[in-house]
Amino acid sequence: MVRKAAAGGARLVVLPEVWNGPYATAAFGEYAEPCPSVGEDATCSASPSVCALARLAAELSLVIVGGSIAELGGDDKLYNTCLVYDAKGLVAAKHRKVHLFDIDVPGKITFRESDTLSPGGALTTFDAGGAFGLVGVGICYDVRFPELALLMAARGARLLVYPGAFNMVTGPAHWELLMRARAVDSQAFVIGASPARTDAPPAAPPGGAARKYPHYTAWGHSIVVSPWGEVLAHAAEGEALLLLDLEMSRVEEVRASLPTSKQKRPDIYTVKPAGG
Amino acid sequence: MVRKAAAGGARLVVLPEVWNGPYATAAFGEYAEPCPSVGEDATCSASPSVCALARLAAELSLVIVGGSIAELGGDDKLYNTCLVYDAKGLVAAKHRKVHLFDIDVPGKITFRESDTLSPGGALTTFDAGGAFGLVGVGICYDVRFPELALLMAARGARLLVYPGAFNMVTGPAHWELLMRARAVDSQAFVIGASPARTDAPPAAPPGGAARKYPHYTAWGHSIVVSPWGEVLAHAAEGEALLLLDLEMSRVEEVRASLPTSKQKRPDIYTVKPAGG
Repeated sequence: MVRKAAAGGARLVVLPEVWNGPYATAAFGEYAEPCPSVGEDATCSASPSVCALARLAAELSLVIVGGSIAELGGDDKLYNTCLVYDAKGLVAAKHRKVHLFDIDVPGKITFRESDTLSPGGALTTFDAGGAFGLVGVGICYDVRFPELALLMAARGARLLVYPGAFNMVTGPAHWELLMRARAVDSQAFVIGASPARTDAPPAAPPGGAARKYPHYTAWGHSIVVSPWGEVLAHAAEGEALLLLDLEMSRVEEVRASLPTSKQKRPDIYTVKPAGG
Repeated sequence: MVRKAAAGGARLVVLPEVWNGPYATAAFGEYAEPCPSVGEDATCSASPSVCALARLAAELSLVIVGGSIAELGGDDKLYNTCLVYDAKGLVAAKHRKVHLFDIDVPGKITFRESDTLSPGGALTTFDAGGAFGLVGVGICYDVRFPELALLMAARGARLLVYPGAFNMVTGPAHWELLMRARAVDSQAFVIGASPARTDAPPAAPPGGAARKYPHYTAWGHSIVVSPWGEVLAHAAEGEALLLLDLEMSRVEEVRASLPTSKQKRPDIYTVKPAGG
């Protein structure tokens, strides 16, 4: 898929959340890989998912926002981590999901990432170069917190990227709404990249092996939104490649038309990075 | 319309922005009225729009969120002001629009409230009593600033009310999106109350009197949204009365399912009232 995108002219590729294994709290440990730090050459990493994407980025000379994988931290903790690879395969950014997905919608869905994952401790932006400029990164549930998007935009981000895997309850209710909301709030492009939907496999036959991990049904519907809140591209639930030009000057156009970032009222409220 | 709502069982009525005169910067001075302060009995006000609503609230024994009118301040400045009347006709809250509507979408719409209006200096909540509890008030363009909604919710608001008059450019693009976004961000009910659409009158015949004020075409589409982001009721562009029960316990239900307000990361970011 990345090669296909590159052949189509892509300069920046975005993958979905937890693309290298099952999205299940009990599975994260098995699939976790150590992740290099910002600035490190990842093409020689011993972590297979990391090495594969870094080499692809270098070979194709493009930026890859590597969705996320379970990270085995140096502290032996597990994180839900997005690595961004620059066009040489160096790590341009590393975002550990800040807001863990701990929800309980009675009778519909219960999930507790915090059973096995630890949260990240920082917001993340990186310079993607070229026309893109500064890009902000959040993962899935992070998109529910407007504070993060506002701060990334205040830093200068003009594109926000959220690898995410909403489900069959929150997906139809909130996925598109939140991606469009963050775009309009921050007057930036927003990309939401989801795994394709895979239906639960049939129950094991009597006497057969039990399913190793519970199945998580992703909503799918990867989406690209303009700074005006328009949906520029939308996948269905299946596997898809969305290939499009982001006319980055739209950011300045929208910000000049409705200059909300200059109309904030710091005499009434402030959103600040802690300690900032 | 208020009597009709009361006859239908309404306990709280919401009117739209600038309901007592043309929405035009040059008209605000002509239609402006002095506005009483919180706690004052408004049933004996010499301001006709204020007096009328206060008496209605007292007579019908319900809360009226009085949309907004142009206010002639004691400082001789003009404000876009929402007065809330309690069931005795006392002023329960007074919100002066904090974010003035100064926009310039080239070739589509240019408007500068700040040509004649001054901005308010505070966020506004009030206790509506009964099942409603604390209610937050913003006016129109205020809805574009998530900070305000987040702070009102942090104070304890479970219902946010936005009298507003979006237009034929921002209305179709953003009205519903922003009302739903603020509902999901704050996990509160949101009411957006718009004037009905009135089309521009035909141009004056040659030699006839010039139109006194430029015509502003409101988008209409008053809306009520649940804390889960569902559109519970939606007017079309014409005059309409939306009469419905808000099942206020939905707020606690949604906040328990997706406990985002408890999952904030004050070690990474904070939204605070200034000086707070």
